[in-house]
Amino acid sequence: MRIFGLGLMALTLLIRPVMAQEISSYSLENGMDVIVIEDHRAPVVVQMVWYRAGSADEPAGVSGIAHFLEHLLFKATDDLAAGELSDTVAANGGSDNAFTSYDYTAYFQRIAADRLELVMKMEADRMRDLRLTVDDIATERDVILEERNTRTENSPDALFSEQRRAAQFMNHRYGIPIIGWKHEMQQLSLEDALAFYRRFYAPNNAILVVAGDVQPDQVLTLAKKYYGPLAPTADLPKRSRPTEPPQLAERRLTFVDERIAQPYVIRTYLAPERNSGDQKQAAALTMLADLLGGSAQTSVLGRKLQFETSKAVYTSAYYGGQSLDETTFGLVIVPSQGVGLAEGEALLDQAIGEFIKEGVDADQLERIKMQIRASLVYQQDNVQAMAHEYGSALTQGLTIQDVKDWPKVLQQVTAEDVIKAAELLLDKNRAVTGWLTNPTAQKEASQ
Amino acid sequence: MRIFGLGLMALTLLIRPVMAQEISSYSLENGMDVIVIEDHRAPVVVQMVWYRAGSADEPAGVSGIAHFLEHLLFKATDDLAAGELSDTVAANGGSDNAFTSYDYTAYFQRIAADRLELVMKMEADRMRDLRLTVDDIATERDVILEERNTRTENSPDALFSEQRRAAQFMNHRYGIPIIGWKHEMQQLSLEDALAFYRRFYAPNNAILVVAGDVQPDQVLTLAKKYYGPLAPTADLPKRSRPTEPPQLAERRLTFVDERIAQPYVIRTYLAPERNSGDQKQAAALTMLADLLGGSAQTSVLGRKLQFETSKAVYTSAYYGGQSLDETTFGLVIVPSQGVGLAEGEALLDQAIGEFIKEGVDADQLERIKMQIRASLVYQQDNVQAMAHEYGSALTQGLTIQDVKDWPKVLQQVTAEDVIKAAELLLDKNRAVTGWLTNPTAQKEASQ
Repeated sequence: MRIFGLGLMALTLLIRPVMAQEISSYSLENGMDVIVIEDHRAPVVVQMVWYRAGSADEPAGVSGIAHFLEHLLFKATDDLAAGELSDTVAANGGSDNAFTSYDYTAYFQRIAADRLELVMKMEADRMRDLRLTVDDIATERDVILEERNTRTENSPDALFSEQRRAAQFMNHRYGIPIIGWKHEMQQLSLEDALAFYRRFYAPNNAILVVAGDVQPDQVLTLAKKYYGPLAPTADLPKRSRPTEPPQLAERRLTFVDERIAQPYVIRTYLAPERNSGDQKQAAALTMLADLLGGSAQTSVLGRKLQFETSKAVYTSAYYGGQSLDETTFGLVIVPSQGVGLAEGEALLDQAIGEFIKEGVDADQLERIKMQIRASLVYQQDNVQAMAHEYGSALTQGLTIQDVKDWPKVLQQVTAEDVIKAAELLLDKNRAVTGWLTNPTAQKEASQ
Repeated sequence: MRIFGLGLMALTLLIRPVMAQEISSYSLENGMDVIVIEDHRAPVVVQMVWYRAGSADEPAGVSGIAHFLEHLLFKATDDLAAGELSDTVAANGGSDNAFTSYDYTAYFQRIAADRLELVMKMEADRMRDLRLTVDDIATERDVILEERNTRTENSPDALFSEQRRAAQFMNHRYGIPIIGWKHEMQQLSLEDALAFYRRFYAPNNAILVVAGDVQPDQVLTLAKKYYGPLAPTADLPKRSRPTEPPQLAERRLTFVDERIAQPYVIRTYLAPERNSGDQKQAAALTMLADLLGGSAQTSVLGRKLQFETSKAVYTSAYYGGQSLDETTFGLVIVPSQGVGLAEGEALLDQAIGEFIKEGVDADQLERIKMQIRASLVYQQDNVQAMAHEYGSALTQGLTIQDVKDWPKVLQQVTAEDVIKAAELLLDKNRAVTGWLTNPTAQKEASQ
């Protein structure tokens, strides 16, 4: 029951491309998409069901309901007792879990390949036949509130991230935390959960991804048997969320917390995302993030600010290109002892200014492209990562073809593409610069 | 078809209290509230219908629909041609208009007292029987877009205000402009308008205020005749909008526009609003605004920054205390030639710090209380202002009794109350500080 997209670490994950390969896809009569990824090296299978419904699809005022519902899906159905699905999976030597992000909620099991029918039957059952009670709500709401306490309330980094995102997005729900605002989580009701469930948990809003030691026609037969009879949501509206107005003013915020030992600066720019059939700019931004912040030894920020001048103990650049709507590109600098945040930020700007002027180092670009090609090999070795790749892409506005094209689009990025994308991106009017600091450092800085 | 709450000038309006006086109120069987304010000095009457539906009641993604609908209410009904209502009012020597704010939309006519039945019949007619066409939408959408162009797109102050409000409100729709984001206004449809209309334009969501040369029982008889037969909206949900999470980080923004001749700093703090039966803190904040920024000669900011030191050409403090949900308290300084925004802001902070330390000048507080008492006399002289006072209060969570109590609550504010309210208010983590400047001044400032 993980949440993606919260905090710094999640955002620094590189989007890993995959090589073109044989993928089968179908559409059931009730509108459900089915993707099969064959991999016969080991007798295991991963079943994932992805819903085109994440926290950014929530109605106003009930933040956290997407993630809350993800927890509640482990409660009883008409055929299963609460917890029975996970218990059955474990008893059969498998594992299962679920996760929620801005654009999707997904459920998965990893189990011996001959148990696919077992997990499919259970997963299909809870798509439409959940039987929630008021008790379930009360119990599980305490769980998600505790999750928020642990993950967010006790973490100045996480609180800082929430405040920054709220400033970054003026209109889009990407500015609202996936886990929810605490005061709204406390009010989430059975009615809220059921409204979200009935609307979004339906075959015409879901994608089944099965990866592993299976035959496509066998998967399709099972999918028709178990998911086929489920009723679609009638009149499911087009998926369209409020988008950003022009961002016209440079924004800054300072978060002060005495627990912060190592103050840092993080700046995010509103950035275009990967769009279906049009991934070129996103590919250039992916390269830009890697060029600027990919490695401490060879990246632009690492070299200029850490290795050569020791002005920073850490730098980073990251880009969340896979996103249904406009996303962000981030820069981080953790200045060295004795270097204040204002100086650190000025050095960061200076380093990036120099980079734009000097242009892309051809060797570095080639090295990164080679690393990306190599990473594909590792990726393909992980059947669950492949399933994740397709499931997330398809719930974020991309197609199977887009996923297949992505490695090629990345390899075609030129030095000029990167600089052009950087110049378009680096508009401070579309940026939020955050300082995370402690009272002592803040006091020193203002003297 | 005015919009309240946009821009600086609207926010600097002082909330004017009224003296306790005889007000009649009723409730029709269909849930409509009726308020009658008698004033027999002139043979005129003002009819206002207030809906508990403003821009902050809009669904996400259709910003501007409340104000758009206000325009559309002048189109045809089953009984009236487009424009017929206003034409009829004018032909009878009266005037009419409408306005939209965050918390309400209101319609009014001012006309000879013996024409009340005429305007009531027409106003009641358009509450439920509007007949909108696709043509109406296309035509009037161009009008509101032109209104936005004139009022907002061509005004750096207005754009700056929008960007600041979006930063101030992290979750509440007070962060979305009343007139709407342009890109959402362009998409507003007949369906959007009708959905808002059918839900909110109903007797159980409306308040009729009639003020002037009328008898309460006569008004009630007419109200029963014309508004009484209208069907209420079934299952109208409790009016509850998303509220703010804890604001934990000081926010700043800089808006640069070459048209700005006179750069300035404006800081808003999230502030409590007047609550029914609990207006004491809001009264103290009202006094605080007046003490700090009420007059250039005697206010704290005027005296310290303009009169005594000539560091500023203008200062102001304002407080929008009448609001359904949490509101803002604002401070403004327009520094003199040669004084930069950073210095201006520091001087503003210093002046307020001194004020808190020195305490309230008893003479100044007494003078302000006297001015407030005097303003009541003027207020009472204006029957339309009285109707506005009650209509807005009742759509913003207050009662008739709250309006009657307000002057007394204001008079009871002590110097200690003001300082205590100021100390609670002035938390920079809940504030947004905006700089509006031009490229030249910005460049000088950063050198």
